[in-house]
Amino acid sequence: MDNRPIGVFDSGLGGLSAVRSLRRILPGEQLIYFGDTSRVPYGGRSRETILKYARQDVRFLRSFDLKAILIACGTVSTTSLEMLREENDLPMVGVVEPTCRRAVEVTRRGRVGLIATHASVRSGVYETTIGALDKKVEVVARACPLFVPLVENGRFRPGDVVIDTVAREYLEPMRESGIDTLILGCTHYPLLSDVIRGVMGDGVELISAGEESAFELKRTLKARGLLRDCQQGEATYYVSDRVDDFEQIASWFLQEDLHHEANRIDIDRY
Amino acid sequence: MDNRPIGVFDSGLGGLSAVRSLRRILPGEQLIYFGDTSRVPYGGRSRETILKYARQDVRFLRSFDLKAILIACGTVSTTSLEMLREENDLPMVGVVEPTCRRAVEVTRRGRVGLIATHASVRSGVYETTIGALDKKVEVVARACPLFVPLVENGRFRPGDVVIDTVAREYLEPMRESGIDTLILGCTHYPLLSDVIRGVMGDGVELISAGEESAFELKRTLKARGLLRDCQQGEATYYVSDRVDDFEQIASWFLQEDLHHEANRIDIDRY
Repeated sequence: MDNRPIGVFDSGLGGLSAVRSLRRILPGEQLIYFGDTSRVPYGGRSRETILKYARQDVRFLRSFDLKAILIACGTVSTTSLEMLREENDLPMVGVVEPTCRRAVEVTRRGRVGLIATHASVRSGVYETTIGALDKKVEVVARACPLFVPLVENGRFRPGDVVIDTVAREYLEPMRESGIDTLILGCTHYPLLSDVIRGVMGDGVELISAGEESAFELKRTLKARGLLRDCQQGEATYYVSDRVDDFEQIASWFLQEDLHHEANRIDIDRY
Repeated sequence: MDNRPIGVFDSGLGGLSAVRSLRRILPGEQLIYFGDTSRVPYGGRSRETILKYARQDVRFLRSFDLKAILIACGTVSTTSLEMLREENDLPMVGVVEPTCRRAVEVTRRGRVGLIATHASVRSGVYETTIGALDKKVEVVARACPLFVPLVENGRFRPGDVVIDTVAREYLEPMRESGIDTLILGCTHYPLLSDVIRGVMGDGVELISAGEESAFELKRTLKARGLLRDCQQGEATYYVSDRVDDFEQIASWFLQEDLHHEANRIDIDRY
């Protein structure tokens, strides 16, 4: 048993969808979230810059006495996880590996779709990881650059002609390619589950990166006897820059009302 | 006469619409454009962060021997222009003042609309500047946060249900408020002129920030005897991060075909 909190970080607020999964899957845990809103998005930056930023994010989180860290940022998970694990003596879980493992388990016909940001798609990391797990599984990838700004402006509800039109354009070719499993490879996308299901139909299983990493963290903590013995944990939120309407946007991601602001910190000091 | 180049910068590629205006209004000038694509958008960030970024942008541009700088970024113009002018001994033109002056000239009924990013609207700088020019002129402001990502994804053509729907939602209340002049307070918006005119009707005059600042720069250079004596200038493009489809996006903003990539630099070094 270990009552210390779990740290979660992302380049922005998308990682709050992983917090939502954690609160459902590990309801008793204390969570500390950091969203690096002053430097979002990490996607297009160099490996060295991403590693530098990720190290600062970890140093800030470790200014608290943590028992584990969940890296809710796809870009950090794909570029810096190994290095961060070597440098830190606590369990760290990223979003890519658990998601790929689940996709390989779930697919029936061996055709997996991936939607993500340009940077994640371009990195090819999902294909490589899935290929290492089962080289017969084929990956069909598509960048969906408008999904993040649309979600952040509250346009994620089915029936909104704007998101419905954009989703159809991105996803119809993917549906026609015959995939049976679709990885939501960006932490913003779980908010679009209903819209995406509306285009893909019920025959396609949606896999959320945040959720799978939350399950992976639970397995890790359980195996090491680090779960907390408590019914109801709390979450605290930190950001590195002002966020317009933090309460509103956070409530969307968390799917619950949030009645306090995030604390703002200066990440350059870490 | 001064043959040195003019520097132009923006947080991203939107400032290329100001380059287009400059090439029309000052066709003989050499232009050096910097788009801070690794840190775009500036809009939602704090004043301190924006000033820090703007200083780095100016330091990079001044690694060339320049005769003037046009700040094509509304956010930088509204938050940091005075400070940058104090720190730099060359003429600097922003987008706000020239645009406001034009709006005050043009309006017949003294009701001016402003559309811009959240940060520009929140700053209240357009209202303050217009109020200082003519305190009887009333400003109706509206943030249009989805316009930038939609334009950058090529969705700026009338008849596209996505941009038409978003534009109607943003602009119909503004039309109903009875404005006769509308400031396009963000360099991405000139691409939306047809869409915006479709909602606002022909009775509303559109004022483009990029164009007015190009005229202002011409006046400044002329007054100081700094115009270049040449028929045909060239433009060089720098960005701080990889840009997917730079040629495509730049061609939209410049409204001419562009057949070379931008040069990429590391802005953190400046």
